[in-house]
Amino acid sequence: MESATKTVTIAAAKQFVSRCITAAGALPAHSDQMAETLIMADHRGHYSHGMNRLEMYVNDLKQSIADGHIKPAILKESAATAHVDGRNGLGPVVGKFCMDLAIKKAKESGVGWVVAKGSNHYGIAGYYALQASSQGLVGFSFTNSSRIVRVNRSSFYGLGTNPIACAAPGVDGDTFVLDMATSAVSFGKAEVNARKGIPIPDGWGADKEGKVTNDPQAVLDGGGMLPLGGSEETSGYKGYGLAMMVEVLCGILGGSNYSMNIRKWGTTGETADLGQCFIAVNPAMFGDGFEDRMQDLMDSHRNLAPADPEKPVLVAGDPARIHMKKCEELGGIPYPARVIEYMNGVGKSLEVPPM
Amino acid sequence: MESATKTVTIAAAKQFVSRCITAAGALPAHSDQMAETLIMADHRGHYSHGMNRLEMYVNDLKQSIADGHIKPAILKESAATAHVDGRNGLGPVVGKFCMDLAIKKAKESGVGWVVAKGSNHYGIAGYYALQASSQGLVGFSFTNSSRIVRVNRSSFYGLGTNPIACAAPGVDGDTFVLDMATSAVSFGKAEVNARKGIPIPDGWGADKEGKVTNDPQAVLDGGGMLPLGGSEETSGYKGYGLAMMVEVLCGILGGSNYSMNIRKWGTTGETADLGQCFIAVNPAMFGDGFEDRMQDLMDSHRNLAPADPEKPVLVAGDPARIHMKKCEELGGIPYPARVIEYMNGVGKSLEVPPM
Repeated sequence: MESATKTVTIAAAKQFVSRCITAAGALPAHSDQMAETLIMADHRGHYSHGMNRLEMYVNDLKQSIADGHIKPAILKESAATAHVDGRNGLGPVVGKFCMDLAIKKAKESGVGWVVAKGSNHYGIAGYYALQASSQGLVGFSFTNSSRIVRVNRSSFYGLGTNPIACAAPGVDGDTFVLDMATSAVSFGKAEVNARKGIPIPDGWGADKEGKVTNDPQAVLDGGGMLPLGGSEETSGYKGYGLAMMVEVLCGILGGSNYSMNIRKWGTTGETADLGQCFIAVNPAMFGDGFEDRMQDLMDSHRNLAPADPEKPVLVAGDPARIHMKKCEELGGIPYPARVIEYMNGVGKSLEVPPM
Repeated sequence: MESATKTVTIAAAKQFVSRCITAAGALPAHSDQMAETLIMADHRGHYSHGMNRLEMYVNDLKQSIADGHIKPAILKESAATAHVDGRNGLGPVVGKFCMDLAIKKAKESGVGWVVAKGSNHYGIAGYYALQASSQGLVGFSFTNSSRIVRVNRSSFYGLGTNPIACAAPGVDGDTFVLDMATSAVSFGKAEVNARKGIPIPDGWGADKEGKVTNDPQAVLDGGGMLPLGGSEETSGYKGYGLAMMVEVLCGILGGSNYSMNIRKWGTTGETADLGQCFIAVNPAMFGDGFEDRMQDLMDSHRNLAPADPEKPVLVAGDPARIHMKKCEELGGIPYPARVIEYMNGVGKSLEVPPM
C-alpha cells in the first residue's frame, strides 16, 4: 500500500541532495550540479531519475569509483566539435560542461557537437537538451548506459536504455521536450514499480530467460527491458536500432566503454566510463521564424479533439509542464512519505540533517 | 494469390525508371538520380520505397507539380551549416545535393548540417545516410511527409511516418544502417500488403475512426499508421514524439510545409514543399579508432546466441545486406511478375519500352 505524500520545497530538496553528495566526498559546486539535475527530474515528474537515484551516486563517491573533484578536459576541438574526457567526474558536472561548450559553438558556428568519454550517470537526458533550448537553440543529448535491454532475437541484454532527448523552444518559454529511453520504458520506471509493489504492463520488460513478464522484480533480477516497439512483429527492432544509434553517438564516437563492456547496473567494482553526446543547433542558421512555427506545431496538436475528453492531446514535455504546475500549487515536490523516510535514512548515514 | 517472381538486372531496372522519369518531363541527370534512389531501395529489399512509387513521381512531373529541371539554391551558409531551397526539384536531386554539401562541410569542419525546404519525396532516407558513411563519416537523414500517423489520444492524423536514417561505417565496407519510419511501420508496407491482399498485424495501423485494424485497405482509406510503440501504455507517445522531433529537424528548421499543412498523401493539387535534414559528422574529430569499435559493436551483437536457431541476431542494415546477397545470386532484383506487368503498363503510357 502506498503511504501518504509529503511535499518538499525545491530548495530543501536540492539542499538535502547537495549535502549528501558533499558528505559522500564531492566538491560543493559538483554537489550543487548533481542536486540541480536530480531535483529537476523530480520537479518534472521523472521520479525514476531524481532523488530515487541518490544512493547510487553516493555509493559511487564513497567507494571512490567516481570523482567529485575533477574538471573535464577538452582532448580535441574545432569550431563546431569537441571531444571531452570527463575524467571520471560526476555525470551532471561532465554533462553541464559539455553542453555549455556545445552552446558556445552553436552560437558561433551554427552547430556544437560535443562527445564525452569517461563520464558517469548524468540523470535525465532532458536536462542538457533544456540547457540549449533555454538559450534559443535546439538541443540534443544522449548517453549510453549499462546493458539492460534485450537484443532482438536473443535472450541476451546488449544495450542500455540509451535515451534520446531533444528540446526546442516555442514562444514565451513554451518548449518541446522529448526525453525518452529507447527501451519501451526506462529501467527506472520498473524500479519505481518494484519499490511500490505495482505490476508492469505487457511489453515493458522480460525476465532472465528473455520472456515477457508483469513482475517488475523479475526485470530487475537478471531480466531486462524490451526495446521500444516490443516484439519483432510490432517493430521492436526499431527500438533496438535506436538504442544502437545512441551507442554510436556516445561510446563509439567517444571512445568510452560501450554496450557489453559497460559495468553491470548498480555495481561499483569498476569505473563506469560512459560515453555521452551533446548537440546544440542554432535555428537562426536556417529558415526565419523558427519559434513561431514551433509554437504552431505544438498548439495545432494540443488543439486536436481528444478521443477521450478526459485525456487532452499532449505534446512531448506537456506531462512535465503539468507536473511542474502541480508542484507550484503545492509549494514543492510531492514524494511518497516512505521515499522521504528512506532518503532521510541515506542522509543520516552521511550525517546530513533530514529534509 | 501471389504470382511468380521475375528477376530484373539492376541496370535494366534503373534504365527503365530513368526513362519513365525523363518521359514524364525531367532532365536525364535528374531521372538518373531518381532511378539510383528507387532501385537502391528495391535492391536493399525496401520495396515499399522503390519502383512501387514510380507512378507517384511520374504523376508529380506530368502535372508539373514537381520540377525536373531545377537546381537547388543555397539560401544561407556557414562552415558547418546550410539552408537550402530545393526549388520544388525532385526529392532525390535535392537530397543528393544537400548531403554532398553536408559531407564537404563535415570533412572541413567536423559537422555538416544542411536543411532543405521546397523538396519532394526523396525515396529511402537511408540513401543519403549511406552517402556519408561511404565516405567514412556518420550520416543522418530525416524527412517530413504527408500526415498519416495517428496522434496519441486523438483519432486525427497529425504527422507523417517521418523517418530517421543513420549510417555508420565499420571495417571493410560493413555498415550500420538504421532506416526506419517513426510509425510502427512505414505507410509503404501497408501499401504493399494491400496490393498483395495480405492482412496486417495488430499495432501497425488504424482505420478512419482511429481504431486498430488488420485490414491494410482500411489504413489506406482515410485511416493511418500507429506511432512506433503502439498504444499509450506501451509507449506509443515515444514514436509520436520521435515523429515530432523529425518535424522539428525538417519543416520547423527548414521553413517548409510541416505537419498538418503538408498536402494529403497521393494528391497533386499543390506542391509538396517538404522539409528534409541531412547531417554528416566526421568521427576523426572524436575518439580514435571509430571503425574498429563500430565493427566490434556490430559483431558482438551478431555473435549472440539466438533464442531461435533459425533466426540469427541481426544489426540494423543486415536484412538489406542479406537481400543484396540474394540479388547477387539471382543476377538481379526479384519482383512479383504482376508488379513488373503493372510497371511496364506505366512505362507504356509514357512510350517507354518494357523492362
